[in-house]
Amino acid sequence: MAELVGNLLVAQSGGPTAVINSSLAGVITEAGHHECIEEIYGGANGILGILNEELIDINDEKQKTIEGLRSSPGAALGTCRYKIDFNKNPEKAARDMDRLFEVFQAHNIRYFFYVGGNDSQDTSHKIHDEAVKRGYEMRVIGVPKTIDNDLPHTDSCPGYGSVIKYAAASVMEVGLDVGSMATDDGSCCIVEVMGRSAGWIAAGTMLAKRSNPAAPPHMILLPEIQYNMDAVLAKVQETINAYKYCVMVVGEGVRNDKGEEIGADTSRLDAFGHPVLAGAAEKIKELVQARLKTKTRTLMLGYAQRAAGHFASLTDSANAFACGVAAVRAALSGQSGFMVKIVRNTQPEGSILWSTDLQPLGDIANVEHFVPRDWVSEDGFLPNEKFVAYASPLIEGEIKFPVEAGLPKYVVLDGVKVEKKLAPRG
Amino acid sequence: MAELVGNLLVAQSGGPTAVINSSLAGVITEAGHHECIEEIYGGANGILGILNEELIDINDEKQKTIEGLRSSPGAALGTCRYKIDFNKNPEKAARDMDRLFEVFQAHNIRYFFYVGGNDSQDTSHKIHDEAVKRGYEMRVIGVPKTIDNDLPHTDSCPGYGSVIKYAAASVMEVGLDVGSMATDDGSCCIVEVMGRSAGWIAAGTMLAKRSNPAAPPHMILLPEIQYNMDAVLAKVQETINAYKYCVMVVGEGVRNDKGEEIGADTSRLDAFGHPVLAGAAEKIKELVQARLKTKTRTLMLGYAQRAAGHFASLTDSANAFACGVAAVRAALSGQSGFMVKIVRNTQPEGSILWSTDLQPLGDIANVEHFVPRDWVSEDGFLPNEKFVAYASPLIEGEIKFPVEAGLPKYVVLDGVKVEKKLAPRG
Repeated sequence: MAELVGNLLVAQSGGPTAVINSSLAGVITEAGHHECIEEIYGGANGILGILNEELIDINDEKQKTIEGLRSSPGAALGTCRYKIDFNKNPEKAARDMDRLFEVFQAHNIRYFFYVGGNDSQDTSHKIHDEAVKRGYEMRVIGVPKTIDNDLPHTDSCPGYGSVIKYAAASVMEVGLDVGSMATDDGSCCIVEVMGRSAGWIAAGTMLAKRSNPAAPPHMILLPEIQYNMDAVLAKVQETINAYKYCVMVVGEGVRNDKGEEIGADTSRLDAFGHPVLAGAAEKIKELVQARLKTKTRTLMLGYAQRAAGHFASLTDSANAFACGVAAVRAALSGQSGFMVKIVRNTQPEGSILWSTDLQPLGDIANVEHFVPRDWVSEDGFLPNEKFVAYASPLIEGEIKFPVEAGLPKYVVLDGVKVEKKLAPRG
Repeated sequence: MAELVGNLLVAQSGGPTAVINSSLAGVITEAGHHECIEEIYGGANGILGILNEELIDINDEKQKTIEGLRSSPGAALGTCRYKIDFNKNPEKAARDMDRLFEVFQAHNIRYFFYVGGNDSQDTSHKIHDEAVKRGYEMRVIGVPKTIDNDLPHTDSCPGYGSVIKYAAASVMEVGLDVGSMATDDGSCCIVEVMGRSAGWIAAGTMLAKRSNPAAPPHMILLPEIQYNMDAVLAKVQETINAYKYCVMVVGEGVRNDKGEEIGADTSRLDAFGHPVLAGAAEKIKELVQARLKTKTRTLMLGYAQRAAGHFASLTDSANAFACGVAAVRAALSGQSGFMVKIVRNTQPEGSILWSTDLQPLGDIANVEHFVPRDWVSEDGFLPNEKFVAYASPLIEGEIKFPVEAGLPKYVVLDGVKVEKKLAPRG
């Protein structure tokens, strides 16, 4: 394998996570050990920034900033949701592709790493194919990232372990709070977590239960399963009868038995005539209050859940870093057109050795990985021991982070831009 | 001062906090050092449990459980929102008072400590007055607790430092997340925190800014100030023009310039004809999306903010514990009818020595302490350096807590009940 000498470009895409920067740190750290990688650049705001030739000079960053990336949430390079869509607009997609390769050539990019979810792996795949077609020697490796945990072929997705560690801790704490106020009147609390089509995050809060049937969460509704709302209400009532309170966790995309998203009732309009999306938790709250006459509070962790660096999983962060390292090593060994995946090696005595492997990018795009139906109780209201065995190792360990004046001290990049060599995008 | 020999009863009231159990641990620990205190009982679910003679035998709890209370959120004894209201229903209130003293006498309660907010201090005050009136020798001391920080005369309320430490960290993290997705389209994120009439919690998220004008939060709306919504929208737009994104924090009770609660629009009805309370963040989101055409996400930390033991303030926890200790010492020294308050002693070199003192309970009830207007910028959109100087010391230090399988290991009481001596309440 001939050594490929040139520059490296790494970019981040899609929704940030608590550990997406750990993968970035992995790429940068490993790249620093290899002389054939000359300059290390970061794409500002993913593909969008690359199209605009907005490149960040990583070599200009302090070493302690790179180290600090391992414990800083958010996407340090910036991200985007920009998609190169040959189906929707083939001319624009072709123009974008031409422009990307202009930028790659202008800056002698020979190693390209894109950290992201499903769409981003698809983008990487297209760039890899295009490089081959054009005879432009560049190695393209995708680095997995998504709190949704819905990428296929990988054991888990970096970002997922941290979001469920935080969400499970929050549900445990909310449970102690609601439980301590529970008197004979009964009360209900509904926690809405992210997950439009896959219920991995909602399911992950099961870990707060610690196999104590009386402990919250008492019910977890997943988007994969269709729920009869009468059955849901009956289960809430049964739980309140038993424990005086009920803590329910719902994925935002949870559906009723007609397959409709519960939170997406568009029959109500706001003052400006726009449909109001109440959210699943709010809609179920309305039902519980109206039908069971039970006081109900909701909470919606929103972006806080995927950015909670202050209680991120060390296992998750280490796996995220390892994916970045493995991407660089794979590219250096001549590979291209793969995504790094996480592999779980369970040892005879039960501990886990984590490693990485490669999967062709073509196997990843447009395949969504859901919570298996047999990992959930028959009534659909709680994940079972199979899920717990899978998820428990992912939240092991706590990230250490520096604290200043009582708050986490997170790093941001100086973000010095690389001098542009091209005319602005037309 | 003659030594008063008898039993101690401690109870918790109102909404739990991350450190209300630390005050409980303070009472129990200090009480254990004094022989004239014979038995230590806890009231289950506050006054409500005492009325039902539901007493928990604290001496039956393991020492490590008592120690664990110092880092466990929720109210370990259970709480209630029950009020003895002589104005609303004097006969029932008189019956309740008779019953309370039956219970106190039956169990030889000579020391009574009630951990709670404004209403609970009022209850303690009435019990103290009643004991004096009846010639029943019992020492009553109130222990402050409320995330709302709205009790007068005390420097701060145990529970407040922890809620703003967690909320500020969350806003900082959400800011990194939203900021990293900010492209030219602009985006807005609105975080709703607790605080119906006092804006202390919303204001506390100012600490996330660390005096960097570009850093989130960019706007904080307090219930104490009436806001012109056109001015709010103009400020959002100005922020997005400057930084491409805007993170806004709102207290749940924030009001418009007619003095109406923004989140309490009752013009919409749900499927069952009940008014829908959208919440302040959702209402402002609707406005931003409709008028500024800016994509906006909300999050609502709900109970998670006041139960976040995994990122509680060590200063807050220590002050909460000290209040419990001070309550017992005050009672032993013959005092009754006081609330413990926290006193800040700023040292010449700037560090703070925290201590406690006593304030007559009559000074506390029905007085709400608000964020002073001159602690907020003239336009009302951000607290100023006076607020920051006040709030910063309250979030110093992090509680250490045991972790098991990646999640906090919180304690719950065994809760063995004391044998009842009375007939059930009529």
